[in-house]
Amino acid sequence: MGSSFGQLFRITTFGESHGGGVGVVLDGCPSRIALSPNDIQQELDRRRPGQSAIVTQRQESDRCEILSGVFEGQTLGTPIAILVRNEDARPEAYREMKDTYRPSHADFTYQAKYGIRNWQGGGRASARETIGRVAAGAVARKVLAFLHPESEIIAYVTDVYDLSAAVDSSVVTRAQVEANAVRCPDKEAARAMMRAIEQARAEGDSLGGIVECVARNFSAGLGEPVFDKLEADLAKAMLSLPATKGFEIGAGFAATRLRGSEHNDAFEIRDKEVRTATNRSGGIQGGISNGEDIVFRVAFKPTATIARAQQTVTTDKTETTLAARGRHDPCVLPRAVPMVEAMAALVLCDHALRQRALAQPD
Amino acid sequence: MGSSFGQLFRITTFGESHGGGVGVVLDGCPSRIALSPNDIQQELDRRRPGQSAIVTQRQESDRCEILSGVFEGQTLGTPIAILVRNEDARPEAYREMKDTYRPSHADFTYQAKYGIRNWQGGGRASARETIGRVAAGAVARKVLAFLHPESEIIAYVTDVYDLSAAVDSSVVTRAQVEANAVRCPDKEAARAMMRAIEQARAEGDSLGGIVECVARNFSAGLGEPVFDKLEADLAKAMLSLPATKGFEIGAGFAATRLRGSEHNDAFEIRDKEVRTATNRSGGIQGGISNGEDIVFRVAFKPTATIARAQQTVTTDKTETTLAARGRHDPCVLPRAVPMVEAMAALVLCDHALRQRALAQPD
Amino acid sequence: MGSSFGQLFRITTFGESHGGGVGVVLDGCPSRIALSPNDIQQELDRRRPGQSAIVTQRQESDRCEILSGVFEGQTLGTPIAILVRNEDARPEAYREMKDTYRPSHADFTYQAKYGIRNWQGGGRASARETIGRVAAGAVARKVLAFLHPESEIIAYVTDVYDLSAAVDSSVVTRAQVEANAVRCPDKEAARAMMRAIEQARAEGDSLGGIVECVARNFSAGLGEPVFDKLEADLAKAMLSLPATKGFEIGAGFAATRLRGSEHNDAFEIRDKEVRTATNRSGGIQGGISNGEDIVFRVAFKPTATIARAQQTVTTDKTETTLAARGRHDPCVLPRAVPMVEAMAALVLCDHALRQRALAQPD
Amino acid sequence: MGSSFGQLFRITTFGESHGGGVGVVLDGCPSRIALSPNDIQQELDRRRPGQSAIVTQRQESDRCEILSGVFEGQTLGTPIAILVRNEDARPEAYREMKDTYRPSHADFTYQAKYGIRNWQGGGRASARETIGRVAAGAVARKVLAFLHPESEIIAYVTDVYDLSAAVDSSVVTRAQVEANAVRCPDKEAARAMMRAIEQARAEGDSLGGIVECVARNFSAGLGEPVFDKLEADLAKAMLSLPATKGFEIGAGFAATRLRGSEHNDAFEIRDKEVRTATNRSGGIQGGISNGEDIVFRVAFKPTATIARAQQTVTTDKTETTLAARGRHDPCVLPRAVPMVEAMAALVLCDHALRQRALAQPD
Repeated sequence: MGSSFGQLFRITTFGESHGGGVGVVLDGCPSRIALSPNDIQQELDRRRPGQSAIVTQRQESDRCEILSGVFEGQTLGTPIAILVRNEDARPEAYREMKDTYRPSHADFTYQAKYGIRNWQGGGRASARETIGRVAAGAVARKVLAFLHPESEIIAYVTDVYDLSAAVDSSVVTRAQVEANAVRCPDKEAARAMMRAIEQARAEGDSLGGIVECVARNFSAGLGEPVFDKLEADLAKAMLSLPATKGFEIGAGFAATRLRGSEHNDAFEIRDKEVRTATNRSGGIQGGISNGEDIVFRVAFKPTATIARAQQTVTTDKTETTLAARGRHDPCVLPRAVPMVEAMAALVLCDHALRQRALAQPD
Repeated sequence: MGSSFGQLFRITTFGESHGGGVGVVLDGCPSRIALSPNDIQQELDRRRPGQSAIVTQRQESDRCEILSGVFEGQTLGTPIAILVRNEDARPEAYREMKDTYRPSHADFTYQAKYGIRNWQGGGRASARETIGRVAAGAVARKVLAFLHPESEIIAYVTDVYDLSAAVDSSVVTRAQVEANAVRCPDKEAARAMMRAIEQARAEGDSLGGIVECVARNFSAGLGEPVFDKLEADLAKAMLSLPATKGFEIGAGFAATRLRGSEHNDAFEIRDKEVRTATNRSGGIQGGISNGEDIVFRVAFKPTATIARAQQTVTTDKTETTLAARGRHDPCVLPRAVPMVEAMAALVLCDHALRQRALAQPD
Repeated sequence: MGSSFGQLFRITTFGESHGGGVGVVLDGCPSRIALSPNDIQQELDRRRPGQSAIVTQRQESDRCEILSGVFEGQTLGTPIAILVRNEDARPEAYREMKDTYRPSHADFTYQAKYGIRNWQGGGRASARETIGRVAAGAVARKVLAFLHPESEIIAYVTDVYDLSAAVDSSVVTRAQVEANAVRCPDKEAARAMMRAIEQARAEGDSLGGIVECVARNFSAGLGEPVFDKLEADLAKAMLSLPATKGFEIGAGFAATRLRGSEHNDAFEIRDKEVRTATNRSGGIQGGISNGEDIVFRVAFKPTATIARAQQTVTTDKTETTLAARGRHDPCVLPRAVPMVEAMAALVLCDHALRQRALAQPD
Repeated sequence: MGSSFGQLFRITTFGESHGGGVGVVLDGCPSRIALSPNDIQQELDRRRPGQSAIVTQRQESDRCEILSGVFEGQTLGTPIAILVRNEDARPEAYREMKDTYRPSHADFTYQAKYGIRNWQGGGRASARETIGRVAAGAVARKVLAFLHPESEIIAYVTDVYDLSAAVDSSVVTRAQVEANAVRCPDKEAARAMMRAIEQARAEGDSLGGIVECVARNFSAGLGEPVFDKLEADLAKAMLSLPATKGFEIGAGFAATRLRGSEHNDAFEIRDKEVRTATNRSGGIQGGISNGEDIVFRVAFKPTATIARAQQTVTTDKTETTLAARGRHDPCVLPRAVPMVEAMAALVLCDHALRQRALAQPD
């Protein structure tokens, strides 16, 4: 249980880091949406290892195959299954993980829960699992382009360790995000972040940071009271990503240090529409989008895998030390950007379809 | 859609602030759990208005009636329906809300979504809806007392506006929390918070803050990969509460300013068990509990309803001003504590049952 | 678990035959559908006891109260909770059921499953539970009247014991069904059925029979492959009703005695539309409606409660005999008609909304 | 939507008859269940084409690959993805299906629903889709062997066209079923059925029939009131199989011709257990298993694909005729047997896990 997400636009991911492959089955995609493997591959390429100097140098081409649900370039309305084969399987590299729990990884908890785990790499807890999400997110984008043609979802790095960027969420473009390997649209900050990441790697250490995401040009009315509030589903989506530790929307935690008179978003009439003068709500009020930009931030912890020796224990309860060998990300942030976008697209696409089911024309 | 929560221990809440009443149907409660209306009433009394000087002075006794699912003091295994009648219905007090959208409330978004809204009070978006959650949370506690007899779930206020308390989550008791009206176990901070809240009310303004929650003595193994990670479900649960703007677990956003070598929780053997030397993970790794304390924090914005005049618009798109009249909470934090606990109990009870379904005895 | 039905138009029923009451929460109803308590009461009156000479003479007025989700005569889009109080509670009449299992009732299985049961009447297994379904079905009808304005759902009795009626499903009207107490539109058969039912009651015995249902003027395209085929959801809906033993659609079991060349429905063009020359498929092909009449049949067993003494056992495993006292239905068929219609309306409304979510305009 | 089945033991099938392949993702399988590809292959071999003289002679080896969820011969508790590649793709054989609707197939309804269809073979409506079900059913059997070690699920053909077999459901064995190509344990009837099927094929026609299924040695307590009654979930499961037209449990439709005093199953004490003297209920009372044999019957229509010319229409609404070419099953019954067993295993496994989650030890 637990490998499905969404109500109408519903995905189920599968796969461990080692084994036959990873992938996703997407049920609930409207028919006759133009879809090619390339639409999906583009997004997968943004998340795959080896794409730049500051991410892990593992070589995985992550080529996707659409197994079903598409015919002559269009969706059929039936489940879309997408498979990416595992390639870089070097189980011997993981041999010591068989008997030793890596600190702040899921080795121990999977063992505690299941009494068994695929110790070759992260198994199900590997970031490879997100391949299925990113693939499905690419389909969600295509559906959103049909349902909300003007809509955009753009994520980017705002913070790495103690470095913060200045980004205006209302105008940032994807081109600015993709302009550098950190995926931080503030060029200067990006350069500093790059240096910090490289230094952390040199020191056998790792860094965390914050990804911000903006969803623009979605109409008011998305989100369901009470439990399926739009921000609640976004929070779940983001906290389901590996290495995430926090979520905030609009003014977020900083809202706690404002007074009501400072925080409230006054309504005004702009271009004959009801708009808010400010957007501390982050585009959502009472769980339902209000038509303003939806803006949220996600905290990622520093990568748990580090080259430095750490204190840990073996599966037979003996204390020992462990130092990661091989290739790993000194900072997950650049590769987290497409994951955050994918999850946001899945949530918004699901709610767009839900709204479509129940909305009544005036 | 959207008014149900949980997979096995599943609740559906219903009701608007004005109308017949509010309540909950809980399906999936194990049978033969001792349950009395008083078990539920105790928790409802912690969230109801009028309980102290610093919360709204609306008079609502919020007496619950168990309509089904309990027989001779024990649960039947069938749906438990709980109803609380609405009492303090003074729709005339809300007359001006019929034509005017309150800033940072859900009036506008409900109207945009549904083309209709119950403008008498907050309708479905009212905090009265949480009565059903708190009632169901009281049942969840009873089930958890059966499944995890040593377990405890304790929430408390750590921050109000710019005031922060010093609380040790590993030892705090419910008695300490309930010792003052703010529900902040740091007495001195509580006194300052009390003053700040009273001053905000005097000024026609409102304050936000942070609720922290600790769940102790839950065994390792709760939580499902991939989407139903324990922290993901907690995040959704918390962000579904009214007025919440953020969620963080363990080191949370502060984790982004630590290096991997500083953030990782080393494993050690303690009392012959695998334990972590620190708990920056907040008791969850890879979405599954590791047996350490589960600790998370929830940001609440300052109450949207304030006595000061605010700029807004009418339903026919004319700009106007609005100043709330009558009684309202200058700070939702004290009443949010039982809500956070209830949602945490619902998530943990659901996952405890899910684990029970699939866990294999050694 | 198990008390919810539907994906988008989703109901959760609650309540035992004795206790606070029975009812339903309906989540997923579109907003701005005109709805009054009377719309619901009309359908409840068709299923309630005491309505004619051949049903149980228990006196239950079954007055419904809408607790939420409706405002000024229109649905809000929020959960609609409907409550019917239990009235005819005479638990002493059931005292012997405390210690004795009634044959072919659910007393034993509930005890086996839960280790406890509400032995006052049928508890959760009582036909009173269907009040919630019929109430929700009345709402479904209102939604269908909006989504498929020409649509009709009409159920009727075709068989009681060994008596069969001749009914043309393509033209039968509700007025014909309601013209007699048996709800069999073939007047002569109805008279014979009436006599048979009265005689069975006189003999302390009971009769079963068959309800047929036709859903007309639904467009092609309702139903989802693969598991949520329209006939699969109808089958589940019908077999979830008390006392049902079988379901068949179109030619049903008789189809097994036809050859493919006899059974297939040839396509033809009629009024410029693709139509079938015959309708042995019962309006559904591959799980999806084809625009023809949807016709299915449901088998109901003879009422388990009979006045004759029957062999049974006590809860402490002693053999004994039991003869039902008091008032009960000698034949559930007449009261089953509104139940079948309600479940059909729920299934069709759910699928109509699902289709609305995903259908793409040409 | 609609391609998932089950609550805890939940499968999602994918795939069209032509394209990359068909398969299933199974989420909710307990960990540490021994599972090999061969366990699955055995069941797939029972459903595949070409296995005997009376089924379609299409050559499909249907070799399965387990992509995930199994490690060193044991389940991991994570999703099990199983893929079977499509092999016998001869789309040119289906060219005329592009423009012509086959009578009593799903061509027209898929086109009406989606505005597009994979016209190469049956697409999503092809019986190839059941590969995923049968594969998952094989896993369900392994889990049931762990949860209910004595349990057995055996299906068999009782009727083909007007030929009926005499089979005692309480003692029939799988060996008897597998002893002939018809999968009818009554040898003489089987021979007659074989001849009838061969003759139908020779005549370019097809036959339907009935599959009966018995589930033995399941404990009392499986099944959930109210909507997820065990028979309701079985009915849905069976009516979701291609070509099914009816479902009945226990005495089924014949129950309507019995009086209550004839139909009720008297309780008695046997071997110190509460048992029923007869089993007209089919092992389920009030939706919950009572420990007796669970016995139900499923009606299959004659295969829609026949060699004889039939009247039909083209996609541009012109009347025409169509005669199927190539290889097809003159009678689906023999291959339906493993499908019925698979669906029964899925339902029972799901309910066994659900019961495990909520059952309380005495």
